[in-house]
Amino acid sequence: MTAEIWDVIIVGAGLSGLSAAHLLRKRNAKLKILILEGKDRVGGRTVSTDIPAANGVDRWDFGGQWVGSTQTHIFELIKELGLETFAQFNIGKKVHHMGGPGAKVRTYRTSIPALSPMVLMDLAQLLWKMNRLCATVCVQDPCKTPNAVELDSMTLHSYIKQHVWTAELKEEMGVCSRSVFGLEPSQMSFLFFLMYAAAAGGVLPLLESTPGSAQEFKIKGGTQQLSQCLAERVGWKNVRLSSAVTAIWQDAEWARVTTSTNTFFGRAVIVTCPPHLAAKIHYHPALPSQRGFLTQNMPVGHMIKFIITYRTAFWKEKGLSGEIVAGSSSGCPFCVTFDATSPSGNAALVGFISAQQASQWSSKEGGERRKAVISSLVKYLGLEAASFIHYEEKDWAKEDYSGGCPVNVMAPGLLTYYHPSLRKPCGRIHWAGTETATLWCGYMSGAVQAGQRAALEVLAELYPLTLTQEEQEAVQHSLTVKDPVEQTPTFQLTYFSTTKAIVIAPLAIGAVLFLAQNQNARLMVKTYLANAFF
Amino acid sequence: MTAEIWDVIIVGAGLSGLSAAHLLRKRNAKLKILILEGKDRVGGRTVSTDIPAANGVDRWDFGGQWVGSTQTHIFELIKELGLETFAQFNIGKKVHHMGGPGAKVRTYRTSIPALSPMVLMDLAQLLWKMNRLCATVCVQDPCKTPNAVELDSMTLHSYIKQHVWTAELKEEMGVCSRSVFGLEPSQMSFLFFLMYAAAAGGVLPLLESTPGSAQEFKIKGGTQQLSQCLAERVGWKNVRLSSAVTAIWQDAEWARVTTSTNTFFGRAVIVTCPPHLAAKIHYHPALPSQRGFLTQNMPVGHMIKFIITYRTAFWKEKGLSGEIVAGSSSGCPFCVTFDATSPSGNAALVGFISAQQASQWSSKEGGERRKAVISSLVKYLGLEAASFIHYEEKDWAKEDYSGGCPVNVMAPGLLTYYHPSLRKPCGRIHWAGTETATLWCGYMSGAVQAGQRAALEVLAELYPLTLTQEEQEAVQHSLTVKDPVEQTPTFQLTYFSTTKAIVIAPLAIGAVLFLAQNQNARLMVKTYLANAFF
Repeated sequence: MTAEIWDVIIVGAGLSGLSAAHLLRKRNAKLKILILEGKDRVGGRTVSTDIPAANGVDRWDFGGQWVGSTQTHIFELIKELGLETFAQFNIGKKVHHMGGPGAKVRTYRTSIPALSPMVLMDLAQLLWKMNRLCATVCVQDPCKTPNAVELDSMTLHSYIKQHVWTAELKEEMGVCSRSVFGLEPSQMSFLFFLMYAAAAGGVLPLLESTPGSAQEFKIKGGTQQLSQCLAERVGWKNVRLSSAVTAIWQDAEWARVTTSTNTFFGRAVIVTCPPHLAAKIHYHPALPSQRGFLTQNMPVGHMIKFIITYRTAFWKEKGLSGEIVAGSSSGCPFCVTFDATSPSGNAALVGFISAQQASQWSSKEGGERRKAVISSLVKYLGLEAASFIHYEEKDWAKEDYSGGCPVNVMAPGLLTYYHPSLRKPCGRIHWAGTETATLWCGYMSGAVQAGQRAALEVLAELYPLTLTQEEQEAVQHSLTVKDPVEQTPTFQLTYFSTTKAIVIAPLAIGAVLFLAQNQNARLMVKTYLANAFF
Repeated sequence: MTAEIWDVIIVGAGLSGLSAAHLLRKRNAKLKILILEGKDRVGGRTVSTDIPAANGVDRWDFGGQWVGSTQTHIFELIKELGLETFAQFNIGKKVHHMGGPGAKVRTYRTSIPALSPMVLMDLAQLLWKMNRLCATVCVQDPCKTPNAVELDSMTLHSYIKQHVWTAELKEEMGVCSRSVFGLEPSQMSFLFFLMYAAAAGGVLPLLESTPGSAQEFKIKGGTQQLSQCLAERVGWKNVRLSSAVTAIWQDAEWARVTTSTNTFFGRAVIVTCPPHLAAKIHYHPALPSQRGFLTQNMPVGHMIKFIITYRTAFWKEKGLSGEIVAGSSSGCPFCVTFDATSPSGNAALVGFISAQQASQWSSKEGGERRKAVISSLVKYLGLEAASFIHYEEKDWAKEDYSGGCPVNVMAPGLLTYYHPSLRKPCGRIHWAGTETATLWCGYMSGAVQAGQRAALEVLAELYPLTLTQEEQEAVQHSLTVKDPVEQTPTFQLTYFSTTKAIVIAPLAIGAVLFLAQNQNARLMVKTYLANAFF
C-alpha cells in the first residue's frame, strides 16, 4: 500500500468526472487532480467500438450516442474539443407495430406515429396534460411542485392507466418508457418522469430526432472520444484505470479514498458514479441516512444495444428511414431501431432491447437473441435484413462498474422525502453524474453540467477567488435549493389556466381529429402540439 | 491475511443465519460452520438493552419484539430454547387521533378503531377487497397471481386512493403502512403489500395484537436471547463478530469469502443480510443481472423506536391500554405506541417514529425529538406522561450493518420481473433473511423459516442423505417455484366469486352501518369481518 496526496480526487472517469477535472484544471493549472475509475477504460456509459462493416471496419457507439442542439453543455464541449456532429438520418417511412403480433404493421413519415384518429386524439390530450404538469415542476427542488406528494406517490404506469383512453396509446407509452429509460412505466415515480421531461424541455424532446430533441445528432468517430480528449487534456497520468474505489473516510483535514491496492488523500472528493454504485462505497463517518435511502432506491435501466451492419442501406432504397417502433405485444425483442449508417457511408441499424424485454432476453443464449432480432428486422424491413455483415450487441447490465444503462430513475416516494440528498455535499464529498443534473438530466449533456457544477462547488470551497460573482451565486443557489421553478433550456413552460384549458382542449381535439384524416397533415399536428401546448 | 477452510459460511449472525447454522449443526454435528457478522453483536435486527426503570433497571427490546401464535417457526424455536412468552397488554381504551391537530382525540376498546359509521363502512369494503385479492396471491411465485403485472405496477398509495372513499381511512392506512413497514404507502408495490399480507394470513393479522396476529406476545428477557442462545448452541467460537463480508468469489471447487482482514474458503455460503446490504458485497463472477436489479430496488424501512419508563403504568389506572394511534396530520411525531410494561412490572411505553416522520425527525437533535414525543404523550395520556424515569431511542437507519428497519419492501415493477432471483441460489451462494420467507415474511418467524430453508438447500446439495424424502421435495419445490397458491398458516384464503361478492358486499355494509352505531357491538364487526371475509 502507498499513500498519495492530491487536491481533488474524482471517482469515475466518465463524462461527468472528466468534465469536472477539465474545469478544475482550466481554473487552476496547479491543482493536483486524480481520477479513479473501476473500468479499464474512460467513458463510463459511452463506449465506441470497431466492428466489421461494408468497407472493412468502422466505429459505432454502444453506449450514449445522441446529442441535441438544446443540450448546450455537451455542445459547448464538442466545440471546445474540436469534434464534429452529423444529423440522425430520419427521412422516409417509419415502421410502427402495436396491438399484438397479428396487428397490421403501419408506416408513417412524420414524428407523430401512424395512429387512428381516436388514438391521435388520446395522444394530444395526454401530451397536453403531461406538459401542463411538466410546466409546474421545480427541477431544482421537486418537492416544491404543486401536489408533489400525490404525483410522487404514483407510478408513471398508474398515471397512464388513469389518463390514457386507448389500449394502443398505453402500449405506445410503454415503448417510450423502455426507449428513454430502459425501464417499464411501473418502475418509476410519475413526478420523477415529469422532472426528467422538464429538465429536457418537455415530453416530446425525450422521444424525437427532430431539432432540439434528444436524438438529433451523433458525433463523428463516436462519443467515447469526448472522454478520451478530456483525459488527454487533464493528463492521462492523472487517470488511474482498473482502480475501483471501495471506501471514503473523512476527518477534519482529509478525505481518504481507498481502492483494493492504494490509499489516496484529498482535500475534496467528487463522486460521479451512478447512484446504485455510489451506494456500494463504504463511507466513514456514515453518510446521512437520507442519502442512503435515496441511493438504495434509484433503479437503473436495463438496455441491450445492438448494431447490425449491411452492404447497403437497403431500407433507404425502399423509402424507409430505418426507424421501427414495436410494442411489447408485437413479439419483437427490440422496442426501437434507427438508421446508424456511419459518416463514411457504412450501412447499419442500431436497436435496443430494453426493460422487461431485456430482462427476458438477457438470460438467453446470444445466438438465439440475434436470431430473434434478425427475424423481426426481416418482418419489418424485408428479406434483405437477413443478409447482414455483422451483429454486435452490448448488455449494459453485464458491464462491470455500470450494471445498467442509460440512467437511474427514482421509484415512487423518493423525490418528496429524500431528493435534497441528491446533490447536497457530505463534508468533503460532492456529487456529480448525470442523475444529479438539472438540465438534460440522464443525458451526456447532463453529465457535463453536473460535473461542472460539482467542480464549481469544490472551487467555491477551496479556491473561492477563482470563481466569478455569478458562479459563486450559482453554487450558493444550487446548495440552498431555493428556486421555485427551474428554467428550461429552450423555452419557458407555461402553466395553462383552467379557463384557457377549457377553450384549447376541444379545439385541439377537433383539430387533431380533422388533421389525422390526412397523412400529410400529420406534421401540422406535430407543429401544432409543439407550439400550442409547450 | 490467513485462509481458513470451512464447510458452510454464513453471512450474518441474525436470527436467519443462526437458525440456518443451528439446523445444519443438528443434522450433521461434524459440519464446520462459520458465521461472519459485521456488527459487534449477534441478533441483527433484534437487540435487547438494559435501561433505568422503576425498580432500578430492566431490559427492553429495541428491535423486533413481538411474536404471534400462528408464527409456528419462531414459536417452535422459543420452545426448543426454553424461553417464555407473555401477552401484549391490550386491555382498556385505546387512543385514536386522525384528521388534523385540531380533530377530536377519540378512545375505543376493540381492535376496530373508533371510526364514524361512514369510515367503518369504508374500512369494511376495503378489507373485503384487499383480503379478496390477498387470497389470489401466490406467495411462493407472485408472478402467477391473477393480474400480477397490473397489481405490481401501482403503489399501495394508488390502490388506497382509488378504493378508499374517506379521508380519515386514507390517513389510517398511512399509519398502518408506517407501523408495519416503516415506509409510506407510496414506497411499495401493491402486489408486494398483498404478498406480505398473504404470508401473514391476511391484512388484519399484520396490524393487531389479538390472537394469531403479529403483536400478540413478547419474549421474557428480550428477543436478542434467541440469537444468543442459538450462538451458544452453534458454538461462539464459530461466530466472528465485527467481520463484515466485502466479497464472495466462486470457482469450480470453492466459495472464497473475504472480510477486510481475512479470507475463508467454504463449500457453500448462506447470505442472510437484508437485500440492500447483500447488494453491497462484491461477487465474482458477477451475479445474474436480474439479482442486481432486484436487490438495488428493495427499499428498507426507517423506524426510530423508543421506550419510555415510568414509576407506574398510570395509563392503566386511567382505564387506558397504552395504545395510541396518531395520523400524520396530528402533529404527533410517532405513529403508534403500546404498553411495554415488563414481566417484572416495570412500567413502560414503546413507540415508533416511522417513515416520512422518521426522515423528518431523524436529523433533529435528540432532545428536541424527546420533547416532542413527551408532549404528545401528555396530550393523549395526561400530565403524568411528563414525569418519566428514562427515555431511550434507537434510530435503525443509523445502525451499522442495518441501515434501516424492520424490513425491505419491493418498489413497483420488481415482483413481476425479478422476483425469481429472490431465493434462487447463485452457484454456491444461497439466500436467506426474513425478506426471503414465504410465511410471515418480514417477521422474526420469517427469518427462522428462511434460514431453515436455506440450510436444507445446502444439505440437499452437500449431504442429501441427511434429508427426509419430504424435505428433499420441499427443497426441490422451493427451487423450482411451481406452486400456484401458497397455503397460509392459519386458514385458507378463499377467492370469492363475483356473484357471492354482490350478495355479501351490501349485507356487510348494512351490518357494519347498523353495528357501528353501538360502541359495544364493534367487536362483533371485527369478528364478522374476520370470519366472513377471510
